Amino acid sequence: MSTTPIAPERLADYTPTDRTVPTRSRQRASYDRALVHAILDEGYVCHLGFIRDGAPVVLPTLYGRIGERLYVHGSTGSRPLRMAAARPAAPGTSTSTGSASGDPAEAPGLPVCLTVTHVDGLVLARSAFHHSLNYRSVVVHGTAHQVTDPEELRTALDALVDQVVPGRSADARPASAKELAATAVIRLDLEEVSAKVRSGGPNDDAEDLPLPHWAGVVPVAPRAGTPVPSADLDPAIALPAYLTAL
Amino acid sequence: MSTTPIAPERLADYTPTDRTVPTRSRQRASYDRALVHAILDEGYVCHLGFIRDGAPVVLPTLYGRIGERLYVHGSTGSRPLRMAAARPAAPGTSTSTGSASGDPAEAPGLPVCLTVTHVDGLVLARSAFHHSLNYRSVVVHGTAHQVTDPEELRTALDALVDQVVPGRSADARPASAKELAATAVIRLDLEEVSAKVRSGGPNDDAEDLPLPHWAGVVPVAPRAGTPVPSADLDPAIALPAYLTAL
Repeated sequence: MSTTPIAPERLADYTPTDRTVPTRSRQRASYDRALVHAILDEGYVCHLGFIRDGAPVVLPTLYGRIGERLYVHGSTGSRPLRMAAARPAAPGTSTSTGSASGDPAEAPGLPVCLTVTHVDGLVLARSAFHHSLNYRSVVVHGTAHQVTDPEELRTALDALVDQVVPGRSADARPASAKELAATAVIRLDLEEVSAKVRSGGPNDDAEDLPLPHWAGVVPVAPRAGTPVPSADLDPAIALPAYLTAL
Repeated sequence: MSTTPIAPERLADYTPTDRTVPTRSRQRASYDRALVHAILDEGYVCHLGFIRDGAPVVLPTLYGRIGERLYVHGSTGSRPLRMAAARPAAPGTSTSTGSASGDPAEAPGLPVCLTVTHVDGLVLARSAFHHSLNYRSVVVHGTAHQVTDPEELRTALDALVDQVVPGRSADARPASAKELAATAVIRLDLEEVSAKVRSGGPNDDAEDLPLPHWAGVVPVAPRAGTPVPSADLDPAIALPAYLTAL
Protein backbone atom coordinates (compact mmCIF):
# COMPACT_ATOMS: atom_id res chain seq x y z
CA MET A 1 0.00 0.00 0.00
CA SER A 2 1.15 3.48 -0.81
CA THR A 3 1.83 5.82 2.06
CA THR A 4 1.34 8.93 -0.07
CA PRO A 5 -1.51 10.97 1.43
CA ILE A 6 -4.08 10.89 -1.36
CA ALA A 7 -7.81 11.00 -0.82
CA PRO A 8 -8.81 7.36 -0.32
CA GLU A 9 -11.90 7.65 -2.49
CA ARG A 10 -9.64 8.54 -5.40
CA LEU A 11 -7.33 5.60 -5.14
CA ALA A 12 -9.31 2.90 -3.36
CA ASP A 13 -8.77 -0.46 -5.04
CA TYR A 14 -11.57 -2.28 -6.81
CA THR A 15 -13.02 -4.99 -4.62
CA PRO A 16 -12.03 -8.48 -5.80
CA THR A 17 -14.88 -10.87 -6.53
CA ASP A 18 -15.07 -14.57 -7.35
CA ARG A 19 -14.76 -13.84 -11.03
CA THR A 20 -11.98 -11.26 -10.82
CA VAL A 21 -9.64 -13.49 -8.80
CA PRO A 22 -7.76 -15.68 -11.29
CA THR A 23 -7.30 -19.37 -10.63
CA ARG A 24 -3.71 -19.17 -11.86
CA SER A 25 -0.88 -16.62 -11.56
CA ARG A 26 -2.70 -14.75 -8.80
CA GLN A 27 0.45 -12.73 -8.12
CA ARG A 28 -0.08 -11.06 -11.51
CA ALA A 29 -3.58 -9.84 -10.66
CA SER A 30 -4.19 -6.31 -9.38
CA TYR A 31 -7.20 -4.29 -8.32
CA ASP A 32 -5.32 -1.00 -8.21
CA ARG A 33 -7.58 1.71 -9.60
CA ALA A 34 -4.78 3.90 -10.96
CA LEU A 35 -3.20 0.92 -12.72
CA VAL A 36 -6.54 -0.09 -14.25
CA HIS A 37 -7.13 3.47 -15.46
CA ALA A 38 -3.63 3.70 -16.94
CA ILE A 39 -4.04 0.44 -18.88
CA LEU A 40 -7.46 1.48 -20.16
CA ASP A 41 -6.26 4.96 -21.13
CA GLU A 42 -3.38 3.60 -23.19
CA GLY A 43 -5.75 1.73 -25.53
CA TYR A 44 -8.80 2.38 -27.62
CA VAL A 45 -9.81 -1.08 -28.89
CA CYS A 46 -11.46 -3.51 -26.52
CA HIS A 47 -12.84 -6.98 -27.03
CA LEU A 48 -16.44 -7.08 -25.90
CA GLY A 49 -17.94 -10.43 -24.95
CA PHE A 50 -21.63 -11.17 -24.58
CA ILE A 51 -24.01 -14.09 -24.99
CA ARG A 52 -26.17 -14.48 -28.09
CA ASP A 53 -28.52 -17.42 -28.51
CA GLY A 54 -26.75 -19.17 -25.66
CA ALA A 55 -23.28 -18.92 -27.19
CA PRO A 56 -20.40 -16.53 -26.46
CA VAL A 57 -19.58 -13.75 -28.94
CA VAL A 58 -16.42 -11.60 -28.85
CA LEU A 59 -16.23 -8.49 -31.03
CA PRO A 60 -13.51 -5.83 -31.25
CA THR A 61 -14.79 -2.29 -30.84
CA LEU A 62 -13.81 1.20 -29.73
CA TYR A 63 -14.18 2.43 -26.18
CA GLY A 64 -13.61 5.60 -24.20
CA ARG A 65 -13.30 6.19 -20.45
CA ILE A 66 -14.88 8.98 -18.43
CA GLY A 67 -14.09 8.49 -14.77
CA GLU A 68 -15.50 5.19 -13.59
CA ARG A 69 -17.53 4.66 -16.72
CA LEU A 70 -16.64 3.11 -20.06
CA TYR A 71 -18.46 3.96 -23.28
CA VAL A 72 -18.36 1.36 -26.03
CA HIS A 73 -19.09 2.03 -29.67
CA GLY A 74 -21.76 -0.05 -31.31
CA SER A 75 -20.64 0.14 -34.93
CA THR A 76 -19.60 -3.49 -34.93
CA GLY A 77 -22.34 -4.52 -32.61
CA SER A 78 -25.82 -3.45 -33.46
CA ARG A 79 -26.84 -6.82 -32.09
CA PRO A 80 -25.39 -6.27 -28.59
CA LEU A 81 -26.71 -2.73 -28.70
CA ARG A 82 -30.21 -3.91 -29.38
CA MET A 83 -29.84 -6.49 -26.65
CA ALA A 84 -28.65 -3.86 -24.19
CA ALA A 85 -31.77 -1.85 -24.91
CA ALA A 86 -34.21 -4.73 -25.07
CA ARG A 87 -36.61 -5.57 -22.30
CA PRO A 88 -37.12 -9.27 -21.61
CA ALA A 89 -40.58 -10.79 -21.93
CA ALA A 90 -42.43 -10.71 -18.64
CA PRO A 91 -42.91 -14.13 -17.06
CA GLY A 92 -45.97 -15.79 -18.52
CA THR A 93 -45.97 -13.80 -21.75
CA SER A 94 -45.20 -15.73 -24.88
CA THR A 95 -43.32 -13.17 -26.97
CA SER A 96 -40.71 -10.48 -26.60
CA THR A 97 -40.74 -7.47 -28.88
CA GLY A 98 -37.02 -6.97 -28.41
CA SER A 99 -37.54 -3.24 -28.14
CA ALA A 100 -37.74 -0.94 -25.17
CA SER A 101 -41.40 -0.07 -25.14
CA GLY A 102 -41.47 1.11 -21.54
CA ASP A 103 -39.37 3.17 -19.14
CA PRO A 104 -35.73 3.04 -20.27
CA ALA A 105 -34.71 2.97 -16.63
CA GLU A 106 -36.21 -0.48 -16.49
CA ALA A 107 -34.04 -1.86 -19.30
CA PRO A 108 -32.23 -4.87 -17.86
CA GLY A 109 -29.09 -4.26 -19.88
CA LEU A 110 -26.69 -6.76 -21.40
CA PRO A 111 -24.25 -8.85 -19.32
CA VAL A 112 -20.82 -8.27 -20.85
CA CYS A 113 -17.13 -8.85 -20.28
CA LEU A 114 -14.89 -6.14 -21.69
CA THR A 115 -11.17 -6.84 -22.06
CA VAL A 116 -8.29 -4.55 -23.04
CA THR A 117 -4.84 -6.02 -23.67
CA HIS A 118 -1.45 -4.47 -24.37
CA VAL A 119 1.43 -6.72 -25.43
CA ASP A 120 4.76 -5.34 -24.17
CA GLY A 121 7.23 -8.05 -25.03
CA LEU A 122 7.98 -11.54 -26.30
CA VAL A 123 9.64 -13.57 -23.55
CA LEU A 124 12.04 -16.16 -24.95
CA ALA A 125 13.22 -18.77 -22.47
CA ARG A 126 15.71 -21.58 -22.98
CA SER A 127 12.85 -24.07 -22.66
CA ALA A 128 9.81 -24.01 -24.94
CA PHE A 129 7.70 -24.48 -21.81
CA HIS A 130 8.73 -21.16 -20.23
CA HIS A 131 8.09 -18.99 -23.28
CA SER A 132 5.67 -16.23 -22.40
CA LEU A 133 4.49 -12.71 -23.16
CA ASN A 134 4.87 -9.52 -21.19
CA TYR A 135 1.49 -7.86 -21.18
CA ARG A 136 -0.94 -5.65 -19.29
CA SER A 137 -4.64 -6.40 -19.45
CA VAL A 138 -7.85 -5.23 -17.82
CA VAL A 139 -11.01 -7.32 -17.58
CA VAL A 140 -14.32 -5.65 -16.71
CA HIS A 141 -17.42 -7.66 -15.83
CA GLY A 142 -20.79 -5.98 -15.69
CA THR A 143 -24.05 -5.04 -17.33
CA ALA A 144 -24.03 -2.66 -20.28
CA HIS A 145 -26.82 -0.20 -20.93
CA GLN A 146 -27.56 1.72 -24.08
CA VAL A 147 -26.94 5.46 -23.83
CA THR A 148 -30.11 7.30 -24.80
CA ASP A 149 -29.66 10.78 -23.28
CA PRO A 150 -28.48 13.13 -26.08
CA GLU A 151 -26.07 15.05 -23.83
CA GLU A 152 -24.50 11.87 -22.47
CA LEU A 153 -24.30 10.53 -26.02
CA ARG A 154 -22.49 13.66 -27.17
CA THR A 155 -20.03 13.45 -24.29
CA ALA A 156 -19.51 9.74 -24.95
CA LEU A 157 -18.83 10.31 -28.65
CA ASP A 158 -16.21 12.94 -27.76
CA ALA A 159 -14.63 10.50 -25.32
CA LEU A 160 -14.50 7.78 -27.99
CA VAL A 161 -12.81 10.12 -30.48
CA ASP A 162 -10.35 11.48 -27.90
CA GLN A 163 -9.49 7.97 -26.71
CA VAL A 164 -8.09 7.24 -30.19
CA VAL A 165 -6.48 10.67 -30.77
CA PRO A 166 -6.33 12.87 -27.66
CA GLY A 167 -7.53 16.36 -28.51
CA ARG A 168 -9.20 15.42 -31.77
CA SER A 169 -12.82 15.92 -30.74
CA ALA A 170 -12.21 19.67 -30.45
CA ASP A 171 -10.94 19.69 -34.06
CA ALA A 172 -13.79 17.96 -35.87
CA ARG A 173 -17.34 18.84 -36.76
CA PRO A 174 -19.49 17.81 -33.78
CA ALA A 175 -22.23 15.28 -34.37
CA SER A 176 -25.55 16.61 -35.61
CA ALA A 177 -28.79 15.64 -33.90
CA LYS A 178 -29.43 13.18 -36.71
CA GLU A 179 -25.96 11.64 -36.34
CA LEU A 180 -26.36 11.40 -32.58
CA ALA A 181 -29.62 9.53 -33.11
CA ALA A 182 -27.76 7.11 -35.38
CA THR A 183 -24.86 6.65 -32.93
CA ALA A 184 -25.12 3.50 -30.87
CA VAL A 185 -23.14 3.61 -27.63
CA ILE A 186 -23.34 1.43 -24.55
CA ARG A 187 -22.21 2.34 -21.05
CA LEU A 188 -20.43 0.02 -18.63
CA ASP A 189 -19.52 1.01 -15.08
CA LEU A 190 -16.09 0.14 -13.67
CA GLU A 191 -17.12 -1.87 -10.64
CA GLU A 192 -16.05 -5.48 -11.05
CA VAL A 193 -12.59 -4.96 -12.49
CA SER A 194 -9.15 -6.51 -12.41
CA ALA A 195 -5.82 -5.92 -14.09
CA LYS A 196 -3.21 -8.53 -14.89
CA VAL A 197 0.43 -7.74 -15.58
CA ARG A 198 3.42 -9.85 -16.59
CA SER A 199 6.79 -8.15 -16.90
CA GLY A 200 10.47 -9.00 -16.74
CA GLY A 201 12.63 -11.68 -18.27
CA PRO A 202 12.18 -15.42 -18.75
CA ASN A 203 11.82 -17.68 -15.71
CA ASP A 204 14.05 -20.51 -16.84
CA ASP A 205 14.67 -23.53 -14.66
CA ALA A 206 18.16 -23.43 -13.11
CA GLU A 207 19.27 -26.57 -14.93
CA ASP A 208 18.45 -24.95 -18.30
CA LEU A 209 20.69 -21.90 -17.83
CA PRO A 210 23.79 -23.52 -19.44
CA LEU A 211 21.82 -24.34 -22.64
CA PRO A 212 23.06 -22.61 -25.82
CA HIS A 213 19.74 -20.92 -26.69
CA TRP A 214 19.41 -17.13 -26.72
CA ALA A 215 17.12 -15.97 -23.90
CA GLY A 216 15.62 -12.61 -23.16
CA VAL A 217 12.82 -10.27 -24.12
CA VAL A 218 11.90 -8.70 -27.46
CA PRO A 219 10.05 -5.45 -26.64
CA VAL A 220 6.88 -4.90 -28.65
CA ALA A 221 4.76 -1.77 -28.91
CA PRO A 222 2.29 -0.26 -31.35
CA ARG A 223 3.81 2.47 -33.46
CA ALA A 224 2.14 5.25 -35.39
CA GLY A 225 3.50 5.90 -38.85
CA THR A 226 3.52 9.08 -40.94
CA PRO A 227 -0.04 10.42 -41.32
CA VAL A 228 -1.47 10.06 -44.82
CA PRO A 229 -3.71 13.02 -45.79
CA SER A 230 -6.95 12.34 -47.64
CA ALA A 231 -6.59 12.76 -51.41
CA ASP A 232 -9.22 15.48 -51.20
CA LEU A 233 -7.58 17.39 -48.32
CA ASP A 234 -6.84 21.05 -48.94
CA PRO A 235 -2.99 21.17 -49.01
CA ALA A 236 -3.16 24.39 -47.01
CA ILE A 237 -4.37 22.43 -43.98
CA ALA A 238 -1.29 21.58 -41.94
CA LEU A 239 -0.82 18.47 -39.84
CA PRO A 240 -2.18 19.33 -36.38
CA ALA A 241 0.13 19.22 -33.37
CA TYR A 242 -1.83 16.44 -31.65
CA LEU A 243 -0.96 14.16 -34.59
CA THR A 244 2.71 15.10 -34.59
CA ALA A 245 2.74 14.01 -30.95
CA LEU A 246 1.66 10.49 -31.89
CA MET B 1 -13.27 -15.19 -57.25
CA SER B 2 -9.74 -15.93 -58.31
CA THR B 3 -9.25 -17.59 -61.67
CA THR B 4 -5.87 -19.01 -60.68
CA PRO B 5 -6.08 -22.81 -60.97
CA ILE B 6 -5.60 -23.87 -57.36
CA ALA B 7 -7.13 -26.99 -55.87
CA PRO B 8 -10.61 -25.90 -54.72
CA GLU B 9 -10.38 -27.73 -51.40
CA ARG B 10 -7.45 -25.48 -50.55
CA LEU B 11 -9.16 -22.20 -51.23
CA ALA B 12 -12.87 -22.86 -50.79
CA ASP B 13 -14.47 -20.12 -48.73
CA TYR B 14 -15.87 -20.79 -45.28
CA THR B 15 -19.63 -21.18 -45.38
CA PRO B 16 -21.44 -18.18 -43.87
CA THR B 17 -23.85 -18.94 -41.04
CA ASP B 18 -26.40 -16.87 -39.13
CA ARG B 19 -23.79 -15.85 -36.62
CA THR B 20 -20.96 -15.11 -39.06
CA VAL B 21 -23.04 -12.71 -41.18
CA PRO B 22 -22.85 -9.28 -39.52
CA THR B 23 -25.97 -7.17 -39.13
CA ARG B 24 -24.02 -4.06 -40.14
CA SER B 25 -21.23 -3.29 -42.64
CA ARG B 26 -21.80 -6.57 -44.47
CA GLN B 27 -19.57 -5.38 -47.27
CA ARG B 28 -16.64 -5.61 -44.85
CA ALA B 29 -17.23 -9.28 -44.07
CA SER B 30 -15.33 -12.03 -45.86
CA TYR B 31 -15.26 -15.81 -45.75
CA ASP B 32 -12.12 -16.11 -47.85
CA ARG B 33 -9.99 -18.88 -46.42
CA ALA B 34 -6.65 -17.41 -47.52
CA LEU B 35 -7.55 -14.03 -46.01
CA VAL B 36 -8.61 -15.65 -42.74
CA HIS B 37 -5.37 -17.62 -42.58
CA ALA B 38 -3.30 -14.51 -43.34
CA ILE B 39 -4.96 -12.51 -40.56
CA LEU B 40 -4.56 -15.35 -38.08
CA ASP B 41 -0.93 -15.95 -39.03
CA GLU B 42 0.02 -12.30 -38.48
CA GLY B 43 -1.00 -12.43 -34.82
CA TYR B 44 -0.36 -14.55 -31.76
CA VAL B 45 -2.73 -13.11 -29.13
CA CYS B 46 -6.42 -13.87 -29.38
CA HIS B 47 -9.33 -12.94 -27.15
CA LEU B 48 -11.15 -16.09 -26.11
CA GLY B 49 -14.77 -15.78 -25.02
CA PHE B 50 -16.72 -18.42 -23.13
CA ILE B 51 -19.56 -18.62 -20.64
CA ARG B 52 -18.93 -19.14 -16.93
CA ASP B 53 -21.79 -19.31 -14.44
CA GLY B 54 -24.11 -17.87 -17.08
CA ALA B 55 -21.98 -14.79 -17.78
CA PRO B 56 -19.58 -14.02 -20.62
CA VAL B 57 -15.82 -14.06 -19.97
CA VAL B 58 -13.16 -12.75 -22.37
CA LEU B 59 -9.50 -13.55 -21.73
CA PRO B 60 -6.42 -12.76 -23.82
CA THR B 61 -4.27 -15.76 -24.58
CA LEU B 62 -1.79 -17.20 -27.08
CA TYR B 63 -2.80 -19.26 -30.08
CA GLY B 64 -1.16 -21.09 -32.94
CA ARG B 65 -2.58 -22.36 -36.23
CA ILE B 66 -1.95 -25.72 -37.89
CA GLY B 67 -4.00 -25.98 -41.05
CA GLU B 68 -7.68 -25.72 -40.19
CA ARG B 69 -7.09 -26.05 -36.49
CA LEU B 70 -6.27 -23.47 -33.81
CA TYR B 71 -4.50 -24.34 -30.59
CA VAL B 72 -5.05 -22.03 -27.65
CA HIS B 73 -2.85 -21.82 -24.61
CA GLY B 74 -4.47 -22.29 -21.25
CA SER B 75 -2.06 -20.38 -19.05
CA THR B 76 -4.59 -17.64 -18.42
CA GLY B 77 -7.49 -19.97 -18.51
CA SER B 78 -7.31 -23.00 -16.32
CA ARG B 79 -11.03 -22.48 -15.82
CA PRO B 80 -11.95 -22.72 -19.53
CA LEU B 81 -9.52 -25.57 -19.85
CA ARG B 82 -11.22 -27.51 -17.10
CA MET B 83 -14.58 -26.73 -18.65
CA ALA B 84 -13.41 -27.95 -22.05
CA ALA B 85 -12.41 -31.22 -20.47
CA ALA B 86 -15.35 -31.60 -18.13
CA ARG B 87 -18.17 -34.01 -18.76
CA PRO B 88 -21.62 -32.83 -17.81
CA ALA B 89 -23.61 -34.74 -15.25
CA ALA B 90 -25.77 -37.41 -16.89
CA PRO B 91 -29.49 -36.65 -16.74
CA GLY B 92 -30.87 -37.82 -13.44
CA THR B 93 -27.57 -37.73 -11.59
CA SER B 94 -27.20 -35.13 -8.91
CA THR B 95 -23.53 -34.19 -9.13
CA SER B 96 -20.81 -33.61 -11.70
CA THR B 97 -17.23 -34.35 -10.82
CA GLY B 98 -15.98 -31.81 -13.34
CA SER B 99 -13.30 -34.20 -14.50
CA ALA B 100 -13.12 -36.50 -17.48
CA SER B 101 -13.65 -39.87 -15.87
CA GLY B 102 -14.72 -41.63 -19.04
CA ASP B 103 -13.83 -41.74 -22.69
CA PRO B 104 -12.23 -38.39 -23.64
CA ALA B 105 -13.93 -38.65 -27.02
CA GLU B 106 -17.20 -38.11 -25.20
CA ALA B 107 -16.15 -34.79 -23.69
CA PRO B 108 -18.70 -32.23 -24.85
CA GLY B 109 -16.17 -29.43 -25.07
CA LEU B 110 -16.57 -25.76 -24.36
CA PRO B 111 -18.51 -23.37 -26.64
CA VAL B 112 -16.16 -20.49 -27.42
CA CYS B 113 -15.73 -17.47 -29.63
CA LEU B 114 -12.12 -16.68 -30.55
CA THR B 115 -11.30 -13.27 -32.00
CA VAL B 116 -8.06 -11.91 -33.46
CA THR B 117 -7.79 -8.21 -34.33
CA HIS B 118 -5.10 -6.14 -36.04
CA VAL B 119 -5.39 -2.35 -36.02
CA ASP B 120 -3.92 -0.85 -39.20
CA GLY B 121 -4.79 2.80 -38.96
CA LEU B 122 -6.65 5.63 -37.27
CA VAL B 123 -9.17 7.14 -39.66
CA LEU B 124 -9.71 10.87 -39.02
CA ALA B 125 -12.70 12.38 -40.77
CA ARG B 126 -13.85 16.02 -40.78
CA SER B 127 -16.87 14.96 -38.75
CA ALA B 128 -16.62 13.27 -35.37
CA PHE B 129 -19.29 10.87 -36.58
CA HIS B 130 -17.19 9.41 -39.41
CA HIS B 131 -14.08 8.73 -37.37
CA SER B 132 -13.14 5.08 -37.66
CA LEU B 133 -10.34 2.53 -37.54
CA ASN B 134 -8.75 0.52 -40.29
CA TYR B 135 -8.51 -3.04 -39.04
CA ARG B 136 -8.55 -6.71 -39.95
CA SER B 137 -10.24 -9.18 -37.64
CA VAL B 138 -11.21 -12.84 -37.60
CA VAL B 139 -13.98 -14.29 -35.47
CA VAL B 140 -14.19 -18.06 -34.94
CA HIS B 141 -17.23 -19.72 -33.37
CA GLY B 142 -17.05 -23.31 -32.23
CA THR B 143 -16.50 -25.85 -29.52
CA ALA B 144 -13.08 -26.16 -27.95
CA HIS B 145 -11.68 -29.46 -26.74
CA GLN B 146 -8.75 -30.08 -24.46
CA VAL B 147 -5.73 -31.65 -26.15
CA THR B 148 -4.77 -34.80 -24.29
CA ASP B 149 -2.71 -36.78 -26.81
CA PRO B 150 0.99 -36.23 -25.96
CA GLU B 151 2.09 -36.06 -29.61
CA GLU B 152 -0.62 -33.56 -30.52
CA LEU B 153 0.25 -31.58 -27.41
CA ARG B 154 3.91 -31.44 -28.42
CA THR B 155 3.02 -30.31 -31.93
CA ALA B 156 0.60 -27.71 -30.55
CA LEU B 157 3.21 -26.32 -28.15
CA ASP B 158 5.66 -25.93 -31.05
CA ALA B 159 2.97 -24.15 -33.06
CA LEU B 160 2.27 -21.77 -30.16
CA VAL B 161 5.97 -20.89 -29.82
CA ASP B 162 6.46 -20.50 -33.58
CA GLN B 163 3.36 -18.33 -33.88
CA VAL B 164 5.06 -15.75 -31.63
CA VAL B 165 8.58 -16.12 -33.10
CA PRO B 166 8.73 -18.15 -36.33
CA GLY B 167 11.54 -20.68 -36.12
CA ARG B 168 11.97 -20.47 -32.37
CA SER B 169 10.66 -23.91 -31.42
CA ALA B 170 13.67 -25.51 -33.14
CA ASP B 171 15.99 -23.37 -30.98
CA ALA B 172 14.68 -24.14 -27.50
CA ARG B 173 14.70 -27.13 -25.20
CA PRO B 174 11.63 -29.20 -26.09
CA ALA B 175 9.08 -29.83 -23.39
CA SER B 176 9.71 -32.76 -21.09
CA ALA B 177 7.00 -35.32 -20.42
CA LYS B 178 6.35 -33.63 -17.09
CA GLU B 179 6.04 -30.20 -18.72
CA LEU B 180 3.73 -31.58 -21.40
CA ALA B 181 1.50 -32.98 -18.69
CA ALA B 182 1.40 -29.53 -17.11
CA THR B 183 0.66 -27.77 -20.41
CA ALA B 184 -2.98 -26.96 -20.94
CA VAL B 185 -3.97 -26.48 -24.57
CA ILE B 186 -7.37 -26.46 -26.22
CA ARG B 187 -8.14 -27.15 -29.87
CA LEU B 188 -10.66 -25.27 -32.00
CA ASP B 189 -11.46 -26.21 -35.59
CA LEU B 190 -11.80 -23.48 -38.23
CA GLU B 191 -15.31 -24.18 -39.47
CA GLU B 192 -17.59 -21.29 -38.57
CA VAL B 193 -15.31 -18.39 -39.41
CA SER B 194 -15.48 -14.87 -40.79
CA ALA B 195 -13.06 -12.04 -41.39
CA LYS B 196 -13.86 -8.36 -41.34
CA VAL B 197 -11.69 -5.70 -42.94
CA ARG B 198 -11.87 -1.90 -43.07
CA SER B 199 -9.30 -0.04 -45.14
CA GLY B 200 -8.89 3.26 -46.93
CA GLY B 201 -9.49 6.86 -46.01
CA PRO B 202 -12.33 8.63 -44.21
CA ASN B 203 -15.83 8.59 -45.71
CA ASP B 204 -16.75 12.21 -45.11
CA ASP B 205 -20.08 13.60 -46.21
CA ALA B 206 -19.70 15.82 -49.30
CA GLU B 207 -20.85 18.92 -47.46
CA ASP B 208 -18.07 18.47 -44.87
CA LEU B 209 -15.19 18.47 -47.37
CA PRO B 210 -14.62 22.27 -47.21
CA LEU B 211 -14.23 22.18 -43.41
CA PRO B 212 -10.80 23.22 -42.10
CA HIS B 213 -10.09 19.99 -40.18
CA TRP B 214 -7.19 17.73 -41.18
CA ALA B 215 -8.48 14.43 -42.56
CA GLY B 216 -6.69 11.23 -43.41
CA VAL B 217 -5.24 8.08 -41.92
CA VAL B 218 -2.55 7.58 -39.30
CA PRO B 219 -1.02 4.15 -40.00
CA VAL B 220 -0.53 1.99 -36.90
CA ALA B 221 1.40 -1.27 -36.58
CA PRO B 222 3.09 -3.24 -33.82
CA ARG B 223 6.83 -2.80 -33.81
CA ALA B 224 9.51 -5.02 -32.29
CA GLY B 225 12.29 -3.19 -30.46
CA THR B 226 15.87 -4.20 -29.82
CA PRO B 227 15.98 -7.60 -28.07
CA VAL B 228 17.12 -7.43 -24.43
CA PRO B 229 19.22 -10.45 -23.43
CA SER B 230 18.63 -12.05 -20.05
CA ALA B 231 21.04 -10.81 -17.40
CA ASP B 232 22.25 -14.40 -17.02
CA LEU B 233 22.77 -15.03 -20.75
CA ASP B 234 26.22 -16.20 -21.79
CA PRO B 235 27.59 -13.21 -23.80
CA ALA B 236 29.03 -15.69 -26.32
CA ILE B 237 25.49 -16.54 -27.46
CA ALA B 238 24.72 -14.30 -30.43
CA LEU B 239 21.33 -12.95 -31.36
CA PRO B 240 19.75 -15.56 -33.65
CA ALA B 241 18.82 -14.63 -37.22
CA TYR B 242 15.10 -15.23 -36.66
CA LEU B 243 15.14 -12.42 -34.08
CA THR B 244 17.04 -10.03 -36.31
CA ALA B 245 14.28 -10.58 -38.88
CA LEU B 246 11.65 -9.26 -36.45
